[in-house]
Amino acid sequence: MKALVLERQHEIDIREVAPPPPCGPDDVRIRIHTVGICGSDVHYYTHGRIGPYVVEQPMVLGHEASGIVVETGVNVTNLAVGDRVCMEPGIPSPRSRASKLGIYNVDPAVTFWATPPVDGCLAREVVHPAAFTYRLPDNVSFAQGAMVEPFAIGMQAATKARIKPGDTVVVIGAGTIGLMTMLAALAGGAARAIVADLSAEKLEIARRYPGVTTVDSRTESLRDKIAEITGGWGADVVFEASGSAKVFADLMACACPGGAVVLVGIPIDPVPFDVAAAQAKELRFETVFRYANIYERAIDLIASGKVDLKPLLSATFPFERSVEAFERATAGRPGDVKLQISFVDP
Amino acid sequence: MKALVLERQHEIDIREVAPPPPCGPDDVRIRIHTVGICGSDVHYYTHGRIGPYVVEQPMVLGHEASGIVVETGVNVTNLAVGDRVCMEPGIPSPRSRASKLGIYNVDPAVTFWATPPVDGCLAREVVHPAAFTYRLPDNVSFAQGAMVEPFAIGMQAATKARIKPGDTVVVIGAGTIGLMTMLAALAGGAARAIVADLSAEKLEIARRYPGVTTVDSRTESLRDKIAEITGGWGADVVFEASGSAKVFADLMACACPGGAVVLVGIPIDPVPFDVAAAQAKELRFETVFRYANIYERAIDLIASGKVDLKPLLSATFPFERSVEAFERATAGRPGDVKLQISFVDP
Amino acid sequence: MKALVLERQHEIDIREVAPPPPCGPDDVRIRIHTVGICGSDVHYYTHGRIGPYVVEQPMVLGHEASGIVVETGVNVTNLAVGDRVCMEPGIPSPRSRASKLGIYNVDPAVTFWATPPVDGCLAREVVHPAAFTYRLPDNVSFAQGAMVEPFAIGMQAATKARIKPGDTVVVIGAGTIGLMTMLAALAGGAARAIVADLSAEKLEIARRYPGVTTVDSRTESLRDKIAEITGGWGADVVFEASGSAKVFADLMACACPGGAVVLVGIPIDPVPFDVAAAQAKELRFETVFRYANIYERAIDLIASGKVDLKPLLSATFPFERSVEAFERATAGRPGDVKLQISFVDP
Amino acid sequence: MKALVLERQHEIDIREVAPPPPCGPDDVRIRIHTVGICGSDVHYYTHGRIGPYVVEQPMVLGHEASGIVVETGVNVTNLAVGDRVCMEPGIPSPRSRASKLGIYNVDPAVTFWATPPVDGCLAREVVHPAAFTYRLPDNVSFAQGAMVEPFAIGMQAATKARIKPGDTVVVIGAGTIGLMTMLAALAGGAARAIVADLSAEKLEIARRYPGVTTVDSRTESLRDKIAEITGGWGADVVFEASGSAKVFADLMACACPGGAVVLVGIPIDPVPFDVAAAQAKELRFETVFRYANIYERAIDLIASGKVDLKPLLSATFPFERSVEAFERATAGRPGDVKLQISFVDP
Repeated sequence: MKALVLERQHEIDIREVAPPPPCGPDDVRIRIHTVGICGSDVHYYTHGRIGPYVVEQPMVLGHEASGIVVETGVNVTNLAVGDRVCMEPGIPSPRSRASKLGIYNVDPAVTFWATPPVDGCLAREVVHPAAFTYRLPDNVSFAQGAMVEPFAIGMQAATKARIKPGDTVVVIGAGTIGLMTMLAALAGGAARAIVADLSAEKLEIARRYPGVTTVDSRTESLRDKIAEITGGWGADVVFEASGSAKVFADLMACACPGGAVVLVGIPIDPVPFDVAAAQAKELRFETVFRYANIYERAIDLIASGKVDLKPLLSATFPFERSVEAFERATAGRPGDVKLQISFVDP
Repeated sequence: MKALVLERQHEIDIREVAPPPPCGPDDVRIRIHTVGICGSDVHYYTHGRIGPYVVEQPMVLGHEASGIVVETGVNVTNLAVGDRVCMEPGIPSPRSRASKLGIYNVDPAVTFWATPPVDGCLAREVVHPAAFTYRLPDNVSFAQGAMVEPFAIGMQAATKARIKPGDTVVVIGAGTIGLMTMLAALAGGAARAIVADLSAEKLEIARRYPGVTTVDSRTESLRDKIAEITGGWGADVVFEASGSAKVFADLMACACPGGAVVLVGIPIDPVPFDVAAAQAKELRFETVFRYANIYERAIDLIASGKVDLKPLLSATFPFERSVEAFERATAGRPGDVKLQISFVDP
Repeated sequence: MKALVLERQHEIDIREVAPPPPCGPDDVRIRIHTVGICGSDVHYYTHGRIGPYVVEQPMVLGHEASGIVVETGVNVTNLAVGDRVCMEPGIPSPRSRASKLGIYNVDPAVTFWATPPVDGCLAREVVHPAAFTYRLPDNVSFAQGAMVEPFAIGMQAATKARIKPGDTVVVIGAGTIGLMTMLAALAGGAARAIVADLSAEKLEIARRYPGVTTVDSRTESLRDKIAEITGGWGADVVFEASGSAKVFADLMACACPGGAVVLVGIPIDPVPFDVAAAQAKELRFETVFRYANIYERAIDLIASGKVDLKPLLSATFPFERSVEAFERATAGRPGDVKLQISFVDP
Repeated sequence: MKALVLERQHEIDIREVAPPPPCGPDDVRIRIHTVGICGSDVHYYTHGRIGPYVVEQPMVLGHEASGIVVETGVNVTNLAVGDRVCMEPGIPSPRSRASKLGIYNVDPAVTFWATPPVDGCLAREVVHPAAFTYRLPDNVSFAQGAMVEPFAIGMQAATKARIKPGDTVVVIGAGTIGLMTMLAALAGGAARAIVADLSAEKLEIARRYPGVTTVDSRTESLRDKIAEITGGWGADVVFEASGSAKVFADLMACACPGGAVVLVGIPIDPVPFDVAAAQAKELRFETVFRYANIYERAIDLIASGKVDLKPLLSATFPFERSVEAFERATAGRPGDVKLQISFVDP
């Protein structure tokens, strides 16, 4: 079958690969419809590695996917042929200690699409455990279905924040994950979000949503804006979604006494962390690694209309033009949020 | 000054009462603008008591109020003359054990407006601690400001539920508090609410809000509807807001394994409680008594537009027609949610 | 192989049964050493059923077991032949929604030893998933290992209580589970436990442990004792471990404002539950169903010496005298806590 | 009255100071019995400042105190003349937003003994709010009473950790606060503590307590010891009590997936913080600033015998030899944990 293969750093092409294995008793076979391009896909393409994960052999890219069930294993009862679905890309060991605890995302044994040496889903078909395959309601499109994965990261962040109804939240960084986090936080109980970035284009996208105040960090002080909006108290929750070390200098000043800081962005190196400033407010810090037990509730929020992902879809490419799609993703246009590849012409 | 006085059971009138005491250093004096009528006001009028609280001397009614600051104590820095405000009606002892813990609502020493023998706020002016007086943003009206109090109960329920983003919630009982709880839960992170009641009028009001499915308990099965919507799993959170003992027979069946039940309604007598059924799902039960640390966030949600209280205001009476307002409240029309009394003609 | 079989209500005997199935790749084969008798074993013997679970065919009894690993499946890495172990008797479906959430104890698909129609472990050998088999440290005996199961219920109760260091707890009911809960709460952070029962013998056992005050409910007022010890504030956590409906009349009075009540005992019928009294203190209620993710930490507490289960072992019978052991268990001597059956003469 | 006054950096003496103000209606007057010397007292003596707090005028030192009530204000009902007591040294504003939330320790308006310009308690008498004065049971000595303050910091750390019964904890740094945290964690639910330090003398003190394993960081690997004890899983909770920046390089490796890190030590400068390593395990970080709502439960644990502070008292000096006591404290002998000053000869 056809797939988009990262042959090695800087080299991708569409070519034939071996079809997936037979559908096991607890699996489903899915015909892929739409796949989003994630920053990690681009990074493997441009750098050939992410931290300890090194591309040492050809690997199919892609992990943000939706599709249609075309075969079900004998034990599968929650899905049927013809169901429109999206899939969690990470498969944990079912009996590991982390899985037993319900935190299967941090299971050291997890395998994850398009994380070397595991193949991704930019291919005609995949076989996947039914337990990690989720039916899409009629009013959730394939395009939205393929955005559940990045939205799930924002949902994980909003969930770990333990937002209380009416909280004021700050989101630092309005890239794809920052925007997803902003949407999850607003749908997840926040009254308002203050979003900071260095890009006017990204802030313009953020401002399309109600309840959002933006801060252009090149010209405005985030601290001052937070103080103005919260009467000097600080934000209940601060989401760090930029991954920039510079942000940490002012991070503690953004939060209110007893507040929470959720670290979503992934800085490459250790950052300078002001413990004493954090202690003076007894801040709590949560960290986020992918997601667990999020997909159902993410889909429910999209289906209910409380979360509108459509403004975040910047362009869709047919599968045949996948290489072009990756080139555009590599270019990193500031107004691009999510690029998708579709097996059916858009 | 003029006030609405409950002279004794069945007898209310507007008459002169002593003005409030001088404004202490940490107090503000507030000219009352609008006061909502609560079920408890009506109950004192019709029954002369609520549980252990007995009307044994004339008492000014009312505890849901908004107004304008007309004087500030010497220590007050958070408010100024002319500020539009609403007030928490309960004043705890500041150094009590409950207050130190932050759960001042369950301080045994709390005094609460219009709870015998404490006078309420259906009067021209009140003097109140600045710490329990909250400024209203420009886009929150006096009418909405006077609804913060009942909304705060719904917010307390939604907060104690610990809603996770995307939860499915059930609200049993669509009276004023049930509707307030529904709004707080939806704004507080729920993807959707299933609301049950015996009154078609009340369900019609609930259905005006997006994300709401209604169940007419006279003709439909709430259990079946929940199973249908949640794929047989059950609701993440069930709010019991009816106070009806009958509801408890099916209560455990509404919730999902590991779910929560929040008891907001106040049954008069002990109810039959199926411990074994609750254990089989390891349900958690939270109970609600008024609210603490809720007003700021309630106001923020109203100001941000995430919560629209306007459809819940059924009628407004000028203060001079307060007795008529109480008569209508006593009648209990099914389509009435909130009746208010205003010192300025509406 | 030999096993203790409940042929039907009132009839148990030792006889040959089919050996367990072959050891699967993720399983271990365990030679049973010691098995405790649980109240549920006795109840199936005397009543032939527990709620919806009816003994309709012969069933091996027993679910509180320790033993020695005699074979390991090919994938098993955490255990080796010769390991001394104890086992969780309930096996959930690994990919169910409850299992994914980490609350595998409330998985509707769980199978549990000696719960009809599933055979128990009062047999020479069992085959069991390695993931639910736990190595015993050298200083934890087989007898203690077989008590991990009932202790785990107390641990689940203490965990769900969210005890804060230095809490005062109340335990109502000093039967086996009540005592286990008391030990778990004291090791789990409580400064002191107030234990109430109707049996002087059971209270005498409770008093052997430091930090315990006992209340003989036949002659003393639990409410008064709690008030005396807590200066009128109430207990931080109340564990209901009696299953008696009568206890609920005073239950809310035992807890402090903002406190927690953990329902461990299983009343047969619905109990009268005073919602209004619970609300006045904003009490939280937790319910307990077996346990999840508890065994490792239970074993650690026993191994560290913080929990001493030895005083709770009342008598040990050789396997050949199992019927006699059940007769004594059926007699329900007030001083008996735990009776065990051992395949090696004690 | 006599007091120990820090005249300026490097200069302390005993001299006459003005007596405390009259006892207000909610206050008590306390005759001081014992005062512990805290590292902060020593730091003001040796450096004249701690961060933004600068000694600009003579200041009475001391904030860890016990004594006897000699006068009670007219509203005081919880204490009587003759009561043996200890005191919280920080007094928050009762109606501040932080106080209303129950996190009065992070109230920006708090005043704290011996924090410039507020006088401390190394004086014959103090007047203090009754709400922050706690009666000592008969079996808790004045010496122990004066140790409640530093123990409360360990208790705050153990409380914020949300220890589950049977957790394995690590404590990095076996200074006074590290040892207090270790004791609070063990009493607060941990099965065992792994304690690391660079000082053999401090580790020897730690090892006197059951459940403690020590690691000499000069010669042993903490990571390896944790892996050995936890089977490679990691510690449930890691308490950082050293304040050393070097510790942070390995901090994330100490904790288990989903574990918690509690930052108790106060590094002077920002530390290098490996966000990506924390995220890979989804660690939670809590920070500690003094304590709130801890004293009652700290005293209960001491009184119950679950926490033994006696081994931590290194020496007691009569008040007249206070300067000598401070000189010894300044010397920082590795075997010294807590030095106290007593107004009654020991």
